[in-house]
Amino acid sequence: MCELLGMSANTPTDLCFSFTGLTRRGGDTGPHGDGWGVAFYEGKGVQAFHESAASASSEIASVVQSHPIKSNTAICHIRQANVGHVCLANTHPFTRELWGRYWVFAHNGQINDFRQRDGIYEAVGDTDSEAIFCDLMNQIRSRSQRDASLETLATILVQQAGDYARQGVFNCLLSNGDWLFTFCSTKLASITRRAPFGPAQLKDADVTVDFEAETTANDVVSIIATEPLTSDEAWDLYQPGEWRLWQQGEVIQSGKVALPGR
Amino acid sequence: MCELLGMSANTPTDLCFSFTGLTRRGGDTGPHGDGWGVAFYEGKGVQAFHESAASASSEIASVVQSHPIKSNTAICHIRQANVGHVCLANTHPFTRELWGRYWVFAHNGQINDFRQRDGIYEAVGDTDSEAIFCDLMNQIRSRSQRDASLETLATILVQQAGDYARQGVFNCLLSNGDWLFTFCSTKLASITRRAPFGPAQLKDADVTVDFEAETTANDVVSIIATEPLTSDEAWDLYQPGEWRLWQQGEVIQSGKVALPGR
Repeated sequence: MCELLGMSANTPTDLCFSFTGLTRRGGDTGPHGDGWGVAFYEGKGVQAFHESAASASSEIASVVQSHPIKSNTAICHIRQANVGHVCLANTHPFTRELWGRYWVFAHNGQINDFRQRDGIYEAVGDTDSEAIFCDLMNQIRSRSQRDASLETLATILVQQAGDYARQGVFNCLLSNGDWLFTFCSTKLASITRRAPFGPAQLKDADVTVDFEAETTANDVVSIIATEPLTSDEAWDLYQPGEWRLWQQGEVIQSGKVALPGR
Repeated sequence: MCELLGMSANTPTDLCFSFTGLTRRGGDTGPHGDGWGVAFYEGKGVQAFHESAASASSEIASVVQSHPIKSNTAICHIRQANVGHVCLANTHPFTRELWGRYWVFAHNGQINDFRQRDGIYEAVGDTDSEAIFCDLMNQIRSRSQRDASLETLATILVQQAGDYARQGVFNCLLSNGDWLFTFCSTKLASITRRAPFGPAQLKDADVTVDFEAETTANDVVSIIATEPLTSDEAWDLYQPGEWRLWQQGEVIQSGKVALPGR
């Protein structure tokens, strides 16, 4: 399986602390050594890094850990391959352009024998994850439109996510740079940090940060991850079927779909 | 204006030497300090780096200079903004997916008031370059098909490139990972290195490489750039209107279109 990490913030914020924790699980404190990737939105642009090797020993991941790239929305993934071989084309997050925006997606889970329906977007690699993403993008393009409200778009995203989750395991992060959609099929957790900020200790590395020293009183920064990344904070666990739509660090819509047998 | 750098090789080859020369022109030996980007194909996947800051002083560019990423096809660009403001979304190379492959594009030149025709692919930023790329991708999608021969595809590319070059300045590099299409509207040069290899000296940095020590007898590596990057090799200058289609380090098709007034 894999691990997901997302960030939604109301001010450009770096992901160094959480990224350091996650990437240690990529071949060091965790088995997810089959590639890693991260995408940071900067305005409508995306700064992305991908490697098909383990993040724990990566020189490029090390630069991303120490080089503060400030973003309002970021999506990160470390991979333990199940479907699809280990190669760059199979490394999340995946990106496609729709209506003049880059849409970025990462998936944790597995849907056996997933077949995407015909459409404009096609997978480049051979993972179920990218095929699902392309299917989702094709559905959005055909069922919605550029100026649709966020409520309308969320309805489509939730319907599709529920549909995928009934076929297998489908935890996902999706963003177009304006919002971050998160869906939990089996496992996802979040934490929102706001004033008064305190210190936090990573589970996976001997690293503590004092957010008080790094933030202003108005900052709201939310982290969404497969597993809580810190040992001394109260993370909010998603229920199976639960979705949350984040914007500027806050949940602006949420809900839960029924998943049979759970 | 901007500067382009492309590579086509018959074996995975790193771009460290040429990239070092080019990125010095991004705010040091040259004025191209408004962003830089590079895309390396690894199989069908693409490892890309983009920044909206000067490459000459970039920590990430420094890692790419020293970290040998081996690729058969790579496209690099350093930017001096003319159309479009300085931001990540305006930083070349640009990427779109078509027929299950990533297509990567970088442009040197300017077409004033370029308007892309309606189509599936849309620009995210506000450069003429990305609008031209999206227009080109829409033309390829509508005028060609997945299993078209490379001759058919080249005919479309040359027609489109000539059309753009008649509207302004259009030097470009385009690849889908299988081949590298290059078009010269005003300025482009190439060099093909093969056995017997010798040493080469960068123009822009006090760096010499002995390719003999880094290659095998069968390697063929071609570099295409806006300006020759070395001071002691014989670069082959393109004529205005000339195009060359590269694959595995060799020119497999080439030709010249008439550009009025030149």
